[in-house]
Amino acid sequence: MIAESHTVERETRGNADIVNLTPEIVDLVARSQITTGQVTAMVIGSTAALSTIEYEPGLVTCDVKAALEKIAPEHGRYLHEETWHDDNGHSHVRATLIGPSLALPIVDGRIPLGTWQQIVLLDFDTRPRSRRVAVTLLCA
Amino acid sequence: MIAESHTVERETRGNADIVNLTPEIVDLVARSQITTGQVTAMVIGSTAALSTIEYEPGLVTCDVKAALEKIAPEHGRYLHEETWHDDNGHSHVRATLIGPSLALPIVDGRIPLGTWQQIVLLDFDTRPRSRRVAVTLLCA
Amino acid sequence: MIAESHTVERETRGNADIVNLTPEIVDLVARSQITTGQVTAMVIGSTAALSTIEYEPGLVTCDVKAALEKIAPEHGRYLHEETWHDDNGHSHVRATLIGPSLALPIVDGRIPLGTWQQIVLLDFDTRPRSRRVAVTLLCA
Repeated sequence: MIAESHTVERETRGNADIVNLTPEIVDLVARSQITTGQVTAMVIGSTAALSTIEYEPGLVTCDVKAALEKIAPEHGRYLHEETWHDDNGHSHVRATLIGPSLALPIVDGRIPLGTWQQIVLLDFDTRPRSRRVAVTLLCA
Repeated sequence: MIAESHTVERETRGNADIVNLTPEIVDLVARSQITTGQVTAMVIGSTAALSTIEYEPGLVTCDVKAALEKIAPEHGRYLHEETWHDDNGHSHVRATLIGPSLALPIVDGRIPLGTWQQIVLLDFDTRPRSRRVAVTLLCA
Repeated sequence: MIAESHTVERETRGNADIVNLTPEIVDLVARSQITTGQVTAMVIGSTAALSTIEYEPGLVTCDVKAALEKIAPEHGRYLHEETWHDDNGHSHVRATLIGPSLALPIVDGRIPLGTWQQIVLLDFDTRPRSRRVAVTLLCA
């Protein structure tokens, strides 16, 4: 049985910056030498989220942001902002809807991602941040 | 190796009631004495979801609800309601979009949540419910 | 300690086809003879997602699709489509928002789903696909 914990750190630009974490997480799995197991990843903070996406500029710089703008617009009115004289109400709402964590299988020593499927951190905050993603690996 | 299962029970008011489960889940992790591992949590039922949020009144009572009202409005028209003479079509849709489960790392004996990041149950049903969240802890 | 990996394969029709995976996953858990543990499931590909839902025709054929049409309309304008001369920009956006994975507890030898709660694959692509879902089971 192996249980390992790691932290992946990344600088982000905020404003729905979508950052590709696949190389770092794939590398952690390879180094662990786990054959069959699970990866759990959680972004630390309440204005960012984790998911997967085809990491190409159209989706990453434009299309996801446009969809979220319909649900929680950047310049909308938020009680969060009125209460705290803050500007990131939309960031919090977007992060809660997508969610902070992923659970990914390890099969034959790797995460069986699709050809165009990448693991990403979505940073919705309104300023650049130093983000940390906690990653735990478990196996028999 | 430890594998433990627990149930967290909470009364909710429905109608996008957002309930803070952090104290209960943090306490389960502390009692388990697990150093490195994973928490898996799943809300039982199809009209509620789990996520994380900064647990302050603006987001919790207003802003998340307002965003979801744009996607699946409470008084919208749902085939689910027409079929079953029910009133919670929006509750089901919201729950499916956010999702029922979280996978969270345990690092150095705790879940490395951000300073303002809380684990929450979002109850979208249209009436008060007694909710149960199944929580499993795993470690080496 | 047990760590098992499996693949669930399903033909889908695309266009927000929602497929019930509960029988297959429940069967894998039963055969594993795990009493306390976790299931991790991830759909392979970047235009599909996993969640839970009450599997009845109103929600499955109509209501979820209608909500997603508000966020990422099928015939909207996507930079992804303009770049790649493709037609599935909305499929990618929807998949990223819902997410590719679920982490589910195993308690007393079963996943403690609600009475009306089913595990589903949501295929947002614009054509029929042969989908694979990677499923890992872990226990003490």
